[in-house]
Amino acid sequence: MASKVKRGRHFLHVPGPSNVPDRVLAAMSNPVIDHRSQDFFDLVKHITAGMARIFRTKGPVAIYPSSGTGAWETALLNTLSPGDKVLAFESGQFATLWKVMADKHGLKIDFIPGDWRHPLDPAEIERRLTADKGHEIKAVLIVHSETSTGVLNDVPAVRKAMDAAKHPALLMVDAISSLGVHEYRHDDWGVDVTICGSQKGLMLPPGLGYNAISAKALEAHKKAKLPRAYFEWDPMVDANGTGSYPYTPAISMFLASKESIAMMEEEGLENIVARHERMAEATRRAVRHWGLEILCQDPKAYANALTAIMVPEGVNADQLRATILENYDVSLGAGLGKVAGKVFRIGHLGWMNELMVVGGIAGIELGLGLAGVKHKAGGVQAAVDYFGGNTAGHGR
Amino acid sequence: MASKVKRGRHFLHVPGPSNVPDRVLAAMSNPVIDHRSQDFFDLVKHITAGMARIFRTKGPVAIYPSSGTGAWETALLNTLSPGDKVLAFESGQFATLWKVMADKHGLKIDFIPGDWRHPLDPAEIERRLTADKGHEIKAVLIVHSETSTGVLNDVPAVRKAMDAAKHPALLMVDAISSLGVHEYRHDDWGVDVTICGSQKGLMLPPGLGYNAISAKALEAHKKAKLPRAYFEWDPMVDANGTGSYPYTPAISMFLASKESIAMMEEEGLENIVARHERMAEATRRAVRHWGLEILCQDPKAYANALTAIMVPEGVNADQLRATILENYDVSLGAGLGKVAGKVFRIGHLGWMNELMVVGGIAGIELGLGLAGVKHKAGGVQAAVDYFGGNTAGHGR
Amino acid sequence: MASKVKRGRHFLHVPGPSNVPDRVLAAMSNPVIDHRSQDFFDLVKHITAGMARIFRTKGPVAIYPSSGTGAWETALLNTLSPGDKVLAFESGQFATLWKVMADKHGLKIDFIPGDWRHPLDPAEIERRLTADKGHEIKAVLIVHSETSTGVLNDVPAVRKAMDAAKHPALLMVDAISSLGVHEYRHDDWGVDVTICGSQKGLMLPPGLGYNAISAKALEAHKKAKLPRAYFEWDPMVDANGTGSYPYTPAISMFLASKESIAMMEEEGLENIVARHERMAEATRRAVRHWGLEILCQDPKAYANALTAIMVPEGVNADQLRATILENYDVSLGAGLGKVAGKVFRIGHLGWMNELMVVGGIAGIELGLGLAGVKHKAGGVQAAVDYFGGNTAGHGR
Amino acid sequence: MASKVKRGRHFLHVPGPSNVPDRVLAAMSNPVIDHRSQDFFDLVKHITAGMARIFRTKGPVAIYPSSGTGAWETALLNTLSPGDKVLAFESGQFATLWKVMADKHGLKIDFIPGDWRHPLDPAEIERRLTADKGHEIKAVLIVHSETSTGVLNDVPAVRKAMDAAKHPALLMVDAISSLGVHEYRHDDWGVDVTICGSQKGLMLPPGLGYNAISAKALEAHKKAKLPRAYFEWDPMVDANGTGSYPYTPAISMFLASKESIAMMEEEGLENIVARHERMAEATRRAVRHWGLEILCQDPKAYANALTAIMVPEGVNADQLRATILENYDVSLGAGLGKVAGKVFRIGHLGWMNELMVVGGIAGIELGLGLAGVKHKAGGVQAAVDYFGGNTAGHGR
Repeated sequence: MASKVKRGRHFLHVPGPSNVPDRVLAAMSNPVIDHRSQDFFDLVKHITAGMARIFRTKGPVAIYPSSGTGAWETALLNTLSPGDKVLAFESGQFATLWKVMADKHGLKIDFIPGDWRHPLDPAEIERRLTADKGHEIKAVLIVHSETSTGVLNDVPAVRKAMDAAKHPALLMVDAISSLGVHEYRHDDWGVDVTICGSQKGLMLPPGLGYNAISAKALEAHKKAKLPRAYFEWDPMVDANGTGSYPYTPAISMFLASKESIAMMEEEGLENIVARHERMAEATRRAVRHWGLEILCQDPKAYANALTAIMVPEGVNADQLRATILENYDVSLGAGLGKVAGKVFRIGHLGWMNELMVVGGIAGIELGLGLAGVKHKAGGVQAAVDYFGGNTAGHGR
Repeated sequence: MASKVKRGRHFLHVPGPSNVPDRVLAAMSNPVIDHRSQDFFDLVKHITAGMARIFRTKGPVAIYPSSGTGAWETALLNTLSPGDKVLAFESGQFATLWKVMADKHGLKIDFIPGDWRHPLDPAEIERRLTADKGHEIKAVLIVHSETSTGVLNDVPAVRKAMDAAKHPALLMVDAISSLGVHEYRHDDWGVDVTICGSQKGLMLPPGLGYNAISAKALEAHKKAKLPRAYFEWDPMVDANGTGSYPYTPAISMFLASKESIAMMEEEGLENIVARHERMAEATRRAVRHWGLEILCQDPKAYANALTAIMVPEGVNADQLRATILENYDVSLGAGLGKVAGKVFRIGHLGWMNELMVVGGIAGIELGLGLAGVKHKAGGVQAAVDYFGGNTAGHGR
Repeated sequence: MASKVKRGRHFLHVPGPSNVPDRVLAAMSNPVIDHRSQDFFDLVKHITAGMARIFRTKGPVAIYPSSGTGAWETALLNTLSPGDKVLAFESGQFATLWKVMADKHGLKIDFIPGDWRHPLDPAEIERRLTADKGHEIKAVLIVHSETSTGVLNDVPAVRKAMDAAKHPALLMVDAISSLGVHEYRHDDWGVDVTICGSQKGLMLPPGLGYNAISAKALEAHKKAKLPRAYFEWDPMVDANGTGSYPYTPAISMFLASKESIAMMEEEGLENIVARHERMAEATRRAVRHWGLEILCQDPKAYANALTAIMVPEGVNADQLRATILENYDVSLGAGLGKVAGKVFRIGHLGWMNELMVVGGIAGIELGLGLAGVKHKAGGVQAAVDYFGGNTAGHGR
Repeated sequence: MASKVKRGRHFLHVPGPSNVPDRVLAAMSNPVIDHRSQDFFDLVKHITAGMARIFRTKGPVAIYPSSGTGAWETALLNTLSPGDKVLAFESGQFATLWKVMADKHGLKIDFIPGDWRHPLDPAEIERRLTADKGHEIKAVLIVHSETSTGVLNDVPAVRKAMDAAKHPALLMVDAISSLGVHEYRHDDWGVDVTICGSQKGLMLPPGLGYNAISAKALEAHKKAKLPRAYFEWDPMVDANGTGSYPYTPAISMFLASKESIAMMEEEGLENIVARHERMAEATRRAVRHWGLEILCQDPKAYANALTAIMVPEGVNADQLRATILENYDVSLGAGLGKVAGKVFRIGHLGWMNELMVVGGIAGIELGLGLAGVKHKAGGVQAAVDYFGGNTAGHGR
């Protein structure tokens, strides 16, 4: 269903792709340049260095023309060998897809089941790693912010569990919807490979996949036997120093990336995190006011990139989304996998501010009304009041 | 004061310039072409024809690289002679500025005083014209939608009054903030010169000024002796047929204009008018909920391009606007002329939809709170509820 | 006739509008902002200061949404009174149009005839001013680079002549196609008003008109009685200090202008002048090689913005231009006024480099062939050889 | 070495990325949209259908966020199993890199040696296939236009040889620098997988990789055991019908692609081929005039996307390229692999016309002079004269 709304801005509230700033779009519209020129080498070095600051790593960052899915595969192919065992946690649809991908490459996945409503239990990770006396598990795969559920897993706690188990497995983290949204510290947290994509907190169009790589991961890479070519790390690691790519990179995206890194550093990473916390909490206030249920049942594990909302029994979440899109031109994320039709997701990440969030929430509340979904009106004001610090005692 | 808000869209709620659609900006960013090429001649003819449909006239449309102010001057210079008498009505600051301009050109203005809070009285127009037995008054100057006050004057009623008085004066109407906002009919309403600018309902950047011209105005033009060159109509009238300009026109604006005309016709002029009515009414609901006073005291004369709001005694409207801009990145219009500091103006015109309006209103409500201006919270929800048709009985 | 060429860049070789750099187009495509915000005030101050450096003046620069024609009128209206006498020189079509404009405003023009092929004679200026014992002549109007003929007038020599005659007239100079092309020094050369437009050496789209204003001109302005409103200097002079405009300025053009000023200062004004000299000389070498005649008969007075070329007897220059456009997608300037059909003009100004010039010349040479115009092939190589410094002895 | 040239267009004459048309860049700068919206599904279907017309196939086209290198890997992974034998021909550096990639995936490559200066010999293909009685060879890999050498291989002749040998191997063709340049017919020529990238004849930025897929290839795919995930065909084949992607696609590139397909079909594929033939031949005329040697020694096998040129003994081709870039802002391709330093490559593909080619050739000739490389001046004119049909008898 396309929108009947013919005028004014679309409200893009899927949890990725996120809104791309005008400055970034303008930068991207510049002419393509020779990727074997010194100008482009300098640009690549500028961007790998900038992305390293954003990942908070001193190590290299490999950047591919790909999606985040490609960046998952890159992490696996470059560090593991056929038959290797990996430990993963079913935090939601994306964790499941990553697991399926590992299966396809002949890895053996110990997949800790999850209910999609709670974060992983670090104690369970510790238990399983401690039990793995022979250190057969070569890697632990964690999705930091699960984009299908809005649940945030605690990466430092996983690191701690791995250390407590004295286990040498690599720690690989999907930070696709957490980088540029939540605090993220590749080096301090002892992450070996961080996976990311361009189209969420980085405020770029989709089209780039990233791996931030630890020294330990580079060491593992030497022995990794999964066959690979396009996603080989070596030339990309070299590109951090030389700026030279083994094949034609996505040049326009690099032009765009320079601008988005500048914008992120103008705002400051800490401020970005605080802003996302504010946008997300306002959204949750609206949802609670409506009387709808947030999928994530652990408030300490709320992801700030998106909020996944359960619709009441008997309501089709996809029809609701269609109504909202058609009448108010707000794009929302569908429920995926086992929550399909039961959940919709509001993205509030990236180039996003208070008033954009209020607009999006208004579109949803109006759509709930149009679709006849039982709810308590006033969620928009609840969000506004939260932003105004005026949240006590108003009985709406 | 610049905004502290570092991320996400600016909410541009001045009553012009209005938001320019991305499609229009993209069109404008195309390379400049030769203005003496057939391609450009075709473009000019396409645009003059399209603008004639928007003005609802069969006559020519003259388009200048200028602001709306320049288009006022164009109307005067091309139809009047030094010492000519004109009748005008003080609807607000822009009517006053037009009058001052007429003074500078040696015209004698009979300026009917107004309180800036009510529309003109057609009976008064009729009275003065009837009294002008010698037909010394050569033109009646009306601002259709007074951008400084948010008061709409009734153009068809003025026409009727002129007809009743059997007076041959030209009728000149400033439709700068009404074209593409309110119903407007140059031919049916018997307007002789309609003045417009690009940066309001036409969804373009500022930079073009327009005159739609009746046959009677063209007749008057032959005897008009005010000196003019740049703003001479003749070559511009010719350009409607040939596409050829007497000097280098604002080429990029013509590229943009093609796209904005297409967008207006995709939506449909009637739908545009209905949409603006809806945006404006939602805004007024919020204002009333807050307990603030709308400058316009006649609900039948509300302009739908903007709402001018009086701040309570003791509040400086400009400081309030600065607080809102700084903290929520909403641009609002200042009070002008005799309401400076006492009024602020919310623009809700052009490329604007429900959710953009809700966002802007939220920014204002939050700013009222921050600035300590007494108001009843809940205006945002009042606007949302109006959009949802859910406006009865809720006592917020 | 539109071009049959369907692929690749258009070669825009009219003598204005000139090619707008991609950087400038990208800047112009940014969202429109509030013209009454501090951000915009800062932008205006940045641009008036930058333009003053380009005009090489310490005085104010008035910038209007208009064409260069509007900027001519601005200069006249703000300094003169009805019936004032001015001295002007018929350097070509544009000088003639400026003269006609002055006529329309009731000025009395002493128009020194010219043959369009030679620059003005400063001695004649001196003679006439010396003869004007009563100092009835209030202004001398000079077109620095006559865009219709490619003849450059010597402004410092005019200044010297005026000084020798001890005449107090204002010196007004049209630098529309010389600013950003030839050396230009508003203050050092004692110019009182310099007129410019955005679409030539300044590398912007058309849409802005400029006046650089001396203290003496400001003094004259106080007594100037020509009626004016839109083009009044006072608020524009104030805008140099405050950034505030009396009406909605062409905001997108200001965004673009920031970028073009930056590019001009990155290259350096002296380098810009040297580059234009090089482009122009290469073009003239090609023309001479073809055996065609350059309109300007005085090599010391060649304008470097364009070259006007006479076609052989019996050839229609406009048909030739159509052939070139249709087959090679090169836009060329028509002969204007009394050289219509007999002359075509090659623009080589603005964002232009050696290889663009070679491409344009190639299109012309190929068109000469297609149109059956007698010429000696090899003009392209003559231009290339000139660029390569390899111009001796090759007998082609 | 960056360019000292500060003004005017860069002349991008690498053989990819090619110049992206302004229309395409403007389309790409539009806001990102939800990739799970009907609007996007419609866009994907529009583009897969359009690309199928360009590949001249009725079968599906898989489009990945990747480079052409990724599209090579996609073709291999989806059709072959570990240990499979493939036959390939060493046409140059890219054929060699593809071979190395196949090695990495455990394929056994029978690599027919080539001297990089001649096209493959279809008889040799036929010989080897005929000898392969057991049909162990599962695929024949051909680079249609070898971008490193400028040699074109004869795909229909390869097909004929395969048919003559009655061999069931798949035919896979790299058309990266031939699609949109030379005639290409996926279906008629019996190609099973055609590989392409966005940044050459398709006039897009780099960032998309393509596979056009025959029914026979889809059949082979069912049994193909090379591990794969990101590059799996199945969901991409489905996307031809549904428009739905398995992961976030490169949305901005799809916006751009719509425009580039439109431009290609406006020109017509036959006209595009004829145009490239013309651009290429003009370039070769210039090279021959200079007295330099074209790498490709078989005139029937000249690629029209680029010309690879050998520099005289003692000249470093990379220093020459640096001189040309620095002084004339022309980007040229380096010699790759075994011709590094000995060859430079002129790209004349994509959004390219006669005058752009003349400009690029002029930059090279001027650079040859500056670098002191022995050559006969006049190559620019030779190219111009070829375009003008005036190529007989001039002894330059």
